[in-house]
Amino acid sequence: MGASLLDRLFRTRRGRSGAALRRLGDSCDLLLGERGAANTAKIATELLQRYADLDEPTRMEFFARLASRYAPDGARVLARAGEYAESRSAESLANLLKEVEPRRQELLRRLNRAPGGTAALARMRTDLLKSLKSQPALAAVDADFMHLFGSWFSPAFLQLVRVDWSSPARLLEQIIQHEAVHAIRDWSDLRRRLQPDRRCFAFLHPTLPGELLIFVEVALLDAMPDAIAPLLEGAAAESGPQRPRCAVFYSISNCQPGLRGVSLGNFLIKRVCDELQSELPSLRRFCTLSPMPGFAAWLRAGAPFEALRLPRGLLPQAEAARPVVHAALACGELAPEAERLAMQTPALRAALLSLGAAYLCATRDGDPASDPVAKFHLNNGARIERLNYLANRSRRGLGESLGMMVNYLYDPYRIEDYHEDFVHGRVAAARELGRSG
Amino acid sequence: MGASLLDRLFRTRRGRSGAALRRLGDSCDLLLGERGAANTAKIATELLQRYADLDEPTRMEFFARLASRYAPDGARVLARAGEYAESRSAESLANLLKEVEPRRQELLRRLNRAPGGTAALARMRTDLLKSLKSQPALAAVDADFMHLFGSWFSPAFLQLVRVDWSSPARLLEQIIQHEAVHAIRDWSDLRRRLQPDRRCFAFLHPTLPGELLIFVEVALLDAMPDAIAPLLEGAAAESGPQRPRCAVFYSISNCQPGLRGVSLGNFLIKRVCDELQSELPSLRRFCTLSPMPGFAAWLRAGAPFEALRLPRGLLPQAEAARPVVHAALACGELAPEAERLAMQTPALRAALLSLGAAYLCATRDGDPASDPVAKFHLNNGARIERLNYLANRSRRGLGESLGMMVNYLYDPYRIEDYHEDFVHGRVAAARELGRSG
Amino acid sequence: MGASLLDRLFRTRRGRSGAALRRLGDSCDLLLGERGAANTAKIATELLQRYADLDEPTRMEFFARLASRYAPDGARVLARAGEYAESRSAESLANLLKEVEPRRQELLRRLNRAPGGTAALARMRTDLLKSLKSQPALAAVDADFMHLFGSWFSPAFLQLVRVDWSSPARLLEQIIQHEAVHAIRDWSDLRRRLQPDRRCFAFLHPTLPGELLIFVEVALLDAMPDAIAPLLEGAAAESGPQRPRCAVFYSISNCQPGLRGVSLGNFLIKRVCDELQSELPSLRRFCTLSPMPGFAAWLRAGAPFEALRLPRGLLPQAEAARPVVHAALACGELAPEAERLAMQTPALRAALLSLGAAYLCATRDGDPASDPVAKFHLNNGARIERLNYLANRSRRGLGESLGMMVNYLYDPYRIEDYHEDFVHGRVAAARELGRSG
Amino acid sequence: MGASLLDRLFRTRRGRSGAALRRLGDSCDLLLGERGAANTAKIATELLQRYADLDEPTRMEFFARLASRYAPDGARVLARAGEYAESRSAESLANLLKEVEPRRQELLRRLNRAPGGTAALARMRTDLLKSLKSQPALAAVDADFMHLFGSWFSPAFLQLVRVDWSSPARLLEQIIQHEAVHAIRDWSDLRRRLQPDRRCFAFLHPTLPGELLIFVEVALLDAMPDAIAPLLEGAAAESGPQRPRCAVFYSISNCQPGLRGVSLGNFLIKRVCDELQSELPSLRRFCTLSPMPGFAAWLRAGAPFEALRLPRGLLPQAEAARPVVHAALACGELAPEAERLAMQTPALRAALLSLGAAYLCATRDGDPASDPVAKFHLNNGARIERLNYLANRSRRGLGESLGMMVNYLYDPYRIEDYHEDFVHGRVAAARELGRSG
Repeated sequence: MGASLLDRLFRTRRGRSGAALRRLGDSCDLLLGERGAANTAKIATELLQRYADLDEPTRMEFFARLASRYAPDGARVLARAGEYAESRSAESLANLLKEVEPRRQELLRRLNRAPGGTAALARMRTDLLKSLKSQPALAAVDADFMHLFGSWFSPAFLQLVRVDWSSPARLLEQIIQHEAVHAIRDWSDLRRRLQPDRRCFAFLHPTLPGELLIFVEVALLDAMPDAIAPLLEGAAAESGPQRPRCAVFYSISNCQPGLRGVSLGNFLIKRVCDELQSELPSLRRFCTLSPMPGFAAWLRAGAPFEALRLPRGLLPQAEAARPVVHAALACGELAPEAERLAMQTPALRAALLSLGAAYLCATRDGDPASDPVAKFHLNNGARIERLNYLANRSRRGLGESLGMMVNYLYDPYRIEDYHEDFVHGRVAAARELGRSG
Repeated sequence: MGASLLDRLFRTRRGRSGAALRRLGDSCDLLLGERGAANTAKIATELLQRYADLDEPTRMEFFARLASRYAPDGARVLARAGEYAESRSAESLANLLKEVEPRRQELLRRLNRAPGGTAALARMRTDLLKSLKSQPALAAVDADFMHLFGSWFSPAFLQLVRVDWSSPARLLEQIIQHEAVHAIRDWSDLRRRLQPDRRCFAFLHPTLPGELLIFVEVALLDAMPDAIAPLLEGAAAESGPQRPRCAVFYSISNCQPGLRGVSLGNFLIKRVCDELQSELPSLRRFCTLSPMPGFAAWLRAGAPFEALRLPRGLLPQAEAARPVVHAALACGELAPEAERLAMQTPALRAALLSLGAAYLCATRDGDPASDPVAKFHLNNGARIERLNYLANRSRRGLGESLGMMVNYLYDPYRIEDYHEDFVHGRVAAARELGRSG
Repeated sequence: MGASLLDRLFRTRRGRSGAALRRLGDSCDLLLGERGAANTAKIATELLQRYADLDEPTRMEFFARLASRYAPDGARVLARAGEYAESRSAESLANLLKEVEPRRQELLRRLNRAPGGTAALARMRTDLLKSLKSQPALAAVDADFMHLFGSWFSPAFLQLVRVDWSSPARLLEQIIQHEAVHAIRDWSDLRRRLQPDRRCFAFLHPTLPGELLIFVEVALLDAMPDAIAPLLEGAAAESGPQRPRCAVFYSISNCQPGLRGVSLGNFLIKRVCDELQSELPSLRRFCTLSPMPGFAAWLRAGAPFEALRLPRGLLPQAEAARPVVHAALACGELAPEAERLAMQTPALRAALLSLGAAYLCATRDGDPASDPVAKFHLNNGARIERLNYLANRSRRGLGESLGMMVNYLYDPYRIEDYHEDFVHGRVAAARELGRSG
Repeated sequence: MGASLLDRLFRTRRGRSGAALRRLGDSCDLLLGERGAANTAKIATELLQRYADLDEPTRMEFFARLASRYAPDGARVLARAGEYAESRSAESLANLLKEVEPRRQELLRRLNRAPGGTAALARMRTDLLKSLKSQPALAAVDADFMHLFGSWFSPAFLQLVRVDWSSPARLLEQIIQHEAVHAIRDWSDLRRRLQPDRRCFAFLHPTLPGELLIFVEVALLDAMPDAIAPLLEGAAAESGPQRPRCAVFYSISNCQPGLRGVSLGNFLIKRVCDELQSELPSLRRFCTLSPMPGFAAWLRAGAPFEALRLPRGLLPQAEAARPVVHAALACGELAPEAERLAMQTPALRAALLSLGAAYLCATRDGDPASDPVAKFHLNNGARIERLNYLANRSRRGLGESLGMMVNYLYDPYRIEDYHEDFVHGRVAAARELGRSG
């Protein structure tokens, strides 16, 4: 991003916000200078306060300034790269690295030394992500945030905590607020999810005391479940199953919009698997009961699997199933109730399961899993284990996926294989997938 | 460092350790690959165990391999630098950064995800620092360690704890073990330093549970002290001074050799100043009582201040003082006891104070403070406040500095100025310095 | 209680419960014997389980058995008393005390050594209190419970904890459940009562981990409040008053029915006064805003103050007020709304305040305060400070006391005087009481 | 104790201490009165301070005053006893109990409500125990202390904590200070006793925060040990035995002289057995390795077992052994070294083992175990399992018991039997005792 955008922004915004922006800019230079090195916490605190006082448009200008002012210098980078290419010495590499690193990174590192700095930077990135939609050139700034957040929120720093009815209310209300998959109505509903046959684990971080980063809800069962309602509404068990055999991750939710893209869920699931296995040696399977959020839309778009590459064997079934489903959907504005009844016919059931398998397993140009939930679990090294027809009869479940849900299986001995498959464009799935259900 | 060193090392070492090194190398490649991404903790744990099983020479070979194998490719870096210099786009910057970053950094980041990974990497760097002496080309590897440690041990992650007689014994024994300035003889001696008129603060880190990083010992007094013995040996006070006016940092020690060079002491002193001011509002001064470890050697070398630049005003005194001190020292192998007596003469006292001021305040080619302790405090933004003659009569104190000690003063309102002075080659000192004592 | 009741009970109940009771009785003898001394915890645990398995009538029989079987022997007590009266020696006193103490006490002490024993005994006493209504002879058993509970729940063992939004949900739900004065509707309502301008303190006990004994809710205000609604429903303050002057105890509730009669509230209020004064030195007054639960019933009974002794000065006003109030009440089945309107007339207001003062201040045969809340606070050493007309317009407030509430004032310098007054039949009240409001 | 002693004491002590005593007496009356009921903590605190300011003789006078002034009234007690003997009603029992209880008990209960009251009362009892030696009439006062301490230090309130190298130094120094069996030289010696193959458990009490009441040291071994040195000095094990089979209580020490006679050790051993069994299911035996502190003295007194009752079977051996041992001891002032050599002869060894068995197993007038350690363990329900010749070669061990030690075995299934045996004058011992060793 060149200076022109900044100039334009400055021309259009005058007066108070311009002055505020200039002062903030001065603070940045101060913080990056020697005085900032000497008294980082104080200057960083002031800077963050100045930022917090800005209105939204001025914040966007601030990001533009970060993008333009603190980028590496092209000519000098090129010179250092030449020196390194020639000598490959440790010194030339050090010089090159120093020249290449955007000075924004040091700015962010120093801001992080203010008390509460990490939380303030996470909020700042939430603003940045909004601005990014209209100003793609800010991507370079976001890359620096991501680079540092990746380091600061490394799994080495993430604290796994079990959340239960003895946890502080202040923490539990975050569970209610951030549950993104199966909404929690109130504290009684929450309590149900924390009973002895359930588990809830979260990551905390030392710089964000008392704030959840991400959490996962787990049901301890005797077998892999085929419907969500019994998990959410089943009467409260006095105690869990004596020797549960199956741990089901039925909801995973992020709590920090400013950390979008930072890898947390993958590490959480694996740490929780270890934790549960060690607490409950009877466990034999770790799986999910997951939504297929894009399935209904894909069906309504005509289930266009021609554009995709289907695994052998799924194609004939899918071709046979498409007209059946198409006819059902074509009845038009089926009221949800009617839709539900229609789906009871065995033919429709079989057809939907076939298309569900096609939807999940298809790849496009070597890029698997257009479904975001599938992409997440497959990339983690899970495999698609089973499709479950009419597993979620809630309004949202019917609307998003005609009630279909899917179990992803985490097999600790195959995680590496499946992830590698995924990276190379192959989708790991149980053999039976799409045949029955 | 080219492949030649690695080849040579490989040729000279065969058999078991060669095989162990090859297996370790394979682990590195595995960890950096997709399988490593999928199951980082497990593979990283194995790799660290393999490293721990190596003997010392093989570890050095391993570092050599890190230096050569995971360095950025000169030609590709140059190409990316050219693209960036031309377009300055976010994308070209991202490509450049990716190409420039040594892949070692990602390797270290992944190793850090093993349980206990940070501690293992700190031990690994301790080994590396030893190897570095004979293999300067490993500096590039050390630069990557430092880059990551700087991020992981950012002040945002450092936990300030007060250490007292209620602290776990496991933690207190580290104080005894690592005290580097005024040795602690035993637990009774330690107890004296933790009584109500003393404070001890340390930094902990979430990835090194129960391990001190660095600690500082503080005495709460009515005035700035001019001798160390009363602080170390003074009879135990039942309670501290009712309203102490002066907090004296009389010892600061690092506990983690693997973190050498990571900035910790500077942040610790400033956090402790804030903490103490808030606990004890009566405090008016924050200062040190510090050794001058190089003073005696410098005197014995003839106090060569001609090579230095002395502040105006100190020069005449220093010139007058040098022959006096020289005469005293020239008596040759003075037994320490005799030396002590000799130093009681007023003329010698004045001369030593003058030369002490010269020693601390002189700069060479714009580089201030050849004394390492002075360098540390001045860079932190302290100023030289007072020289104290015969302030440390211990064998070590007499040997290193003829018993001279110095108070550095931390004035919260001047820290930024003094640090800036220091960076620009000026030494901040009280006006009276070198006149009296 | 003689053996006859026990016999009768045994005759009427046969079969299983009789056998269960016999086994329980055997357990008691076992626990009191030498084997019980050797392995108390195990035998006590079994005994408590046997008790828990009894149905309600059999539990009553068990209490009857405790009353008859483990009472001191009259003849032997008399002999020992004679010996003591004669010799007054330490030995004769020891013998007497040993003979007099009902062996039930040792039984209860040994039961208390089972894990969870104290909680089980508190539940047992809850049963006993129910039985006591129909079997007054069980009072001797209850006296032993009370004697021991008084020792075990001594203030020395009570742990004062502050309850706030960071407290465990498990603990907070007890607040919702046991709030007895101003019901808490839900978690949002609870949250309001835990905000920065409120405090909540509770007593815990080491033998009942995680269980509240009693709690008090406090509002921090600028002045003594004259209505309850602003305290309960006032919009949530971001922060408390900067320098609150008045701490108002507006609700105090017991959580353990089995501890009825054990003095807890008195100690709680005084500990909380100390705690608040130390946290908030700006506080000048500690008072309550309390209900007058028996006032409406007393008015409807004709405000019979002739049977009482009224303080001088209150009598003429009360006599004048009675017909006014009587007329208002005589309108008969006034709908609450009409009642409320009627009460707006100044004459009625003045009359009700006069009678309210009479109600609270009157004594009967030297026994002050027929109102239980008044009795509690006056006995604690508080004084009646102010009557507040229409201070509680809730259905319950209007029904119990026509909306009248009262402030009791805790003046730390007068607590001893006022308590002594109370014990001698005098009611401590502000001079102005009954005049205005 | 009548008023005469008090009078006499008062006459002999005049002036300041007399006035101090009078003021303290007034405080007692105040605390027992209504004002004391209203503001107990404040008045109790003052009273305890007044007591603390007394010198030792005045404290003894204070105890005398407690004995005389707050004893029950003989005539009134007799009257109440008569009423109870006649009616046996709950009311008459309550009246009797109220009359009989020395008012001192209520005084102590109220003192216990002062902050730190329990600790102050424990110190007061330490004084009382000293006075008791010369003033046996104070036994009545001590009985009241014991009665209340028995209630307050009930096992229900005792908190079992594991002590290890992570415990606060403040707590560990109490272990060093109070170890009464095998002295701990310094912190290194302490550390040895806290390593992975050792355990240390203690009781804490909620009213004495941070103060140990009693602790026990345990070694985890493969078999029952026959000598103490390997336990105390054995090189530090990196880790404990993988699956230890035998937990050995080799030292148990009280820390609170004011709690003498309160049963703590018995409960501690049993709680620790449960705790260890649950942590280490491989444990099969719980035993001690204990001293025989009176054995040498008994031998030197001629091993007078005629005065005792010996179990059948032990007598012939003991009679045969006595002259052998007598001859060895009669050599007179044997230097310990010579003594040790002498004891190596097989004949002497067998003789000493026989007499050791006689010493431990003999009863006198139905009162078993003159050895205090034996009395403690046998009363707890342990049995004498094995005698160990020359098991303690320390100066103290040789001096007290010619180096003999004994294993007591805690068999959870026989504890009740053995305790009952002991109470009935029978000593539980392994069959083989006294035969081999």
